[in-house]
Amino acid sequence: MKVKVVTKILEANERLAEENRKRFREAGVFVLNLMGAPGAGKTSLLERTILKLKDRMNIGVIEGDIAGTDDAERINTTGVPVVQINTGGACHLDANMIREVLTEVPLQDLDMLVIENVGNLVCPAEFKVGEDMKAMVLSITEGHDKPLKYPLMFQESAALVLNKIDLLPHIDVDIDKLRKDAISLNHGIKIFEVSCRTGEGLDRWAEWLNGLK
Amino acid sequence: MKVKVVTKILEANERLAEENRKRFREAGVFVLNLMGAPGAGKTSLLERTILKLKDRMNIGVIEGDIAGTDDAERINTTGVPVVQINTGGACHLDANMIREVLTEVPLQDLDMLVIENVGNLVCPAEFKVGEDMKAMVLSITEGHDKPLKYPLMFQESAALVLNKIDLLPHIDVDIDKLRKDAISLNHGIKIFEVSCRTGEGLDRWAEWLNGLK
Repeated sequence: MKVKVVTKILEANERLAEENRKRFREAGVFVLNLMGAPGAGKTSLLERTILKLKDRMNIGVIEGDIAGTDDAERINTTGVPVVQINTGGACHLDANMIREVLTEVPLQDLDMLVIENVGNLVCPAEFKVGEDMKAMVLSITEGHDKPLKYPLMFQESAALVLNKIDLLPHIDVDIDKLRKDAISLNHGIKIFEVSCRTGEGLDRWAEWLNGLK
Repeated sequence: MKVKVVTKILEANERLAEENRKRFREAGVFVLNLMGAPGAGKTSLLERTILKLKDRMNIGVIEGDIAGTDDAERINTTGVPVVQINTGGACHLDANMIREVLTEVPLQDLDMLVIENVGNLVCPAEFKVGEDMKAMVLSITEGHDKPLKYPLMFQESAALVLNKIDLLPHIDVDIDKLRKDAISLNHGIKIFEVSCRTGEGLDRWAEWLNGLK
């Protein structure tokens, strides 16, 4: 009974995601669904990425949060168009939430739209929003046990950005195990080691992203 | 329509949580629902707490994870009884999951049962499991913006354990703002600054917990 309800929700979401996808394709926009746990550094990565790429492409952002407009305000200072979704209590974005705000997004003017999902290592991976690609940010302070404990997001993501690499000397984390377990779940996953604080590793990530649009 | 479904699920959960609570009371067990984002340090805090308190009380643990038995294995080495729940895909524990495993928990022998929830800063706060108290762990590496972005968990928690305080010199985080925003959401919240790596601050937390049972 419970499973049936969940299946129906996912099916209904899938249909709306397909409609969004069609609109994105018609407008020629590449859409990235950026996921990760709270505090992994999704907004920081986005700020840094926008500054690196905004002279080469037109980027737009949809920010998803339970509450507040902090993230949209941060993105706003980079000068790119941004819309904030507040989910109320929902722990993930879904296709309908994206559809509702698309009137506020200048799709025709964009090359890339980044949708920053709610901070959560679980449910965002289950709900498509019409994206071309999913990517995830994991702070290395979260520990090397995360891939095997939260497998779906690692399986769904084309790229894994390991953030806060500058803290490596100060914490107990086995990056090799983390990488190995992520690859065991998803052989094609691209892994980037970065620090949004020091800027380390961000060029490689930005160049890769630039090559996708 | 969607809201109705959610309401029903929460109501049904509430009834089972009440049944669990009754069983806990009859057995004289104090039950703590320990929540927090992935990698905040819930299991590390639990390991440290058990070692500090196990000569003074009988502690049991229920571990909740999407997948894997890593956390239960870690707790097992401390010598206290532990049961692992794998939720499959669900991003939180609910009352029925707890009920299902209570046959494996020696309630009559325990003074305190700690239920470590799935790593998630959102949904675990919505689903009661029959606990006497909720507490949350937040790694300071997650940033000071978390209370206002994930308000419910801060509102529901009697205690906020700020973990990884040893990393303070290496990161950009405003602990005063974090504390202030947490208190603005929940005036009575007890805040503990700890490092599960160095052991700093853990005595105060353990003594407080010991006083509750």
